[in-house]
Amino acid sequence: MTRAESDHSGAPAGTDDPTLAELSEIAVLQRLFPRLPDADAALLGPGDDSAVVAAPDGRFVVTTDMMIQGPDFRLAWSRPQDLGWKAAATNLSDVAAMGARPTALVVAIAAPQQLPVSVLEGIADGLREACAALAPGCGVVGGDLSVSDTLTLAVTAFGDLEGRAPVLRSGARPGDVVAVAEGGNTLGQAGRGLALLFARGVDAAGTPDVAAADALRTEHPALLEAQLRPSPPILAGAAAAASGATAMLDVSDGLALDATRIARASGVLIDFDAAALGGHPESALGGGEDHSLLACFPADTALPTGFRPIGRVLALPAGEPAGITVDGAPHVPGGWDPYRGWDGHAG
Amino acid sequence: MTRAESDHSGAPAGTDDPTLAELSEIAVLQRLFPRLPDADAALLGPGDDSAVVAAPDGRFVVTTDMMIQGPDFRLAWSRPQDLGWKAAATNLSDVAAMGARPTALVVAIAAPQQLPVSVLEGIADGLREACAALAPGCGVVGGDLSVSDTLTLAVTAFGDLEGRAPVLRSGARPGDVVAVAEGGNTLGQAGRGLALLFARGVDAAGTPDVAAADALRTEHPALLEAQLRPSPPILAGAAAAASGATAMLDVSDGLALDATRIARASGVLIDFDAAALGGHPESALGGGEDHSLLACFPADTALPTGFRPIGRVLALPAGEPAGITVDGAPHVPGGWDPYRGWDGHAG
Repeated sequence: MTRAESDHSGAPAGTDDPTLAELSEIAVLQRLFPRLPDADAALLGPGDDSAVVAAPDGRFVVTTDMMIQGPDFRLAWSRPQDLGWKAAATNLSDVAAMGARPTALVVAIAAPQQLPVSVLEGIADGLREACAALAPGCGVVGGDLSVSDTLTLAVTAFGDLEGRAPVLRSGARPGDVVAVAEGGNTLGQAGRGLALLFARGVDAAGTPDVAAADALRTEHPALLEAQLRPSPPILAGAAAAASGATAMLDVSDGLALDATRIARASGVLIDFDAAALGGHPESALGGGEDHSLLACFPADTALPTGFRPIGRVLALPAGEPAGITVDGAPHVPGGWDPYRGWDGHAG
Repeated sequence: MTRAESDHSGAPAGTDDPTLAELSEIAVLQRLFPRLPDADAALLGPGDDSAVVAAPDGRFVVTTDMMIQGPDFRLAWSRPQDLGWKAAATNLSDVAAMGARPTALVVAIAAPQQLPVSVLEGIADGLREACAALAPGCGVVGGDLSVSDTLTLAVTAFGDLEGRAPVLRSGARPGDVVAVAEGGNTLGQAGRGLALLFARGVDAAGTPDVAAADALRTEHPALLEAQLRPSPPILAGAAAAASGATAMLDVSDGLALDATRIARASGVLIDFDAAALGGHPESALGGGEDHSLLACFPADTALPTGFRPIGRVLALPAGEPAGITVDGAPHVPGGWDPYRGWDGHAG
């Protein structure tokens, strides 16, 4: 079996696709730079010891997140473009969740020496495509290229609050409307896509399999796209802040767990309308990796484009713990823990 | 052999040192947060989707760099504190090389599930110690914790130009003095320390060995400290910019190669005085990982504290390639390439 048949690493046979070991670092960078998106905010881009980025209101928002082959992705399931796209999208979502407009990324990639350079080219393409689609004007201002046995992407993303206060998790007040912006996906789809991949994107031995995953992607495009190439509502973050959102976060660990975080930080109860959670309410509550924006707004707010109401903030009865309810019934969230949730199948 | 005897992962027997798999992510973070340094520039620190950092002059400097177990470090040679220290120091140096004052770091760590939590605690201690010693007031404003088969640190560092223009590689002019600030180390020491470790920090099979490395550290403390726990002259970067430096960089790939980068970017020749390169001129020119600051200054500049002259900038004769000379004789640099320089011994 050639590498191109066993997973998504490697360009089609016959194309110019050396491994990283066969190229110098400079040659690799020369193939990547033209594919990376420019940032409007870059005062000085890649090529010196550091970049310089504009921060017009005298502050910048920053978040960092890694994607690791094995626990976070498998090359049998994700195309290289998907990896770059998702690494950008998930970091942009954490910037948006503060109410900021994303301005720039830096990207560090560590890759095995035997990896075909086309995988890094695909990652660069995905970074560019995600920025263009989700946060136009945001681009890559710097990075690092290293050797590792484990393909690793570390993205750090920056944003501009444009003079607004950051929207924290702690500002929800009784009476607020709870709303969600789901972007191109809907709550629970990403988790259902991952469950499908674990159940049916594998061969008889349980190893992630490229043909099985490709077939699933044809059969369930919305669920697989939500998992492998999510489209969070990045621009809705700044819009929510401008509309007066009192609390907001990126729904990455499941709606129930993330809403509980707002409830605890704010000292309130959050009650969801089950009917607003779609046809798979358990998936919507427990899914994970949605990268929807969950926000609270004063009750008289005209919700910004992309948001729909799914519940309300209630005062916490004396002596009760902060948390969430669904149609008034207590709901205890499950949750994802990176040190407990992975069984070791890399693929 | 217990883990504590084979390398520097793990606290002494009898102490409370569970593996990451035995703790929840929250429990790990609760052990790390109190050890991390606060940043004076943090307007909002860890705990929300993103941090918010002050950028008083409307810009920020940013750089990112990874350290990977195997190619970049071995737990038989480096103590966890050394890893955190070096990860901070090398990134701070790239900020300083722009003429900026370092303000903040974000730190993403990916670690095997079987790693003792004391290793991450040691890394956090090293980050704190390096910030306190090298860039007081700089601290950690955010991070990410992931699972990986390969212990990986990805640091992104930020700096404040305090109203000055960034000092690029391209500004050297004929007549400038070429000067170096070496901080707590001297040019070539880090490379000689690494050569010692490769030659004598291994067992009979060539595998990195903790006892051999510890013995070397006693025998050659300056060389081993320069390699494992470097002390770059971070504050000298902003001082150089304030003194009118025309070009500057962090010497990370050997003085000769990095000086060639300034020469090419500026279209000049750089001539070094061999007598200024110390008792091991070949190590000084070719060493790597010095993290000294190499800067050019107009000839009449009073060099800022920490800098000493080592050469001069000459006009490029018509038709000649930009590059370096030593006492007037052409010098062709070797160089380090991450995709060619590692033989795969992890340790």
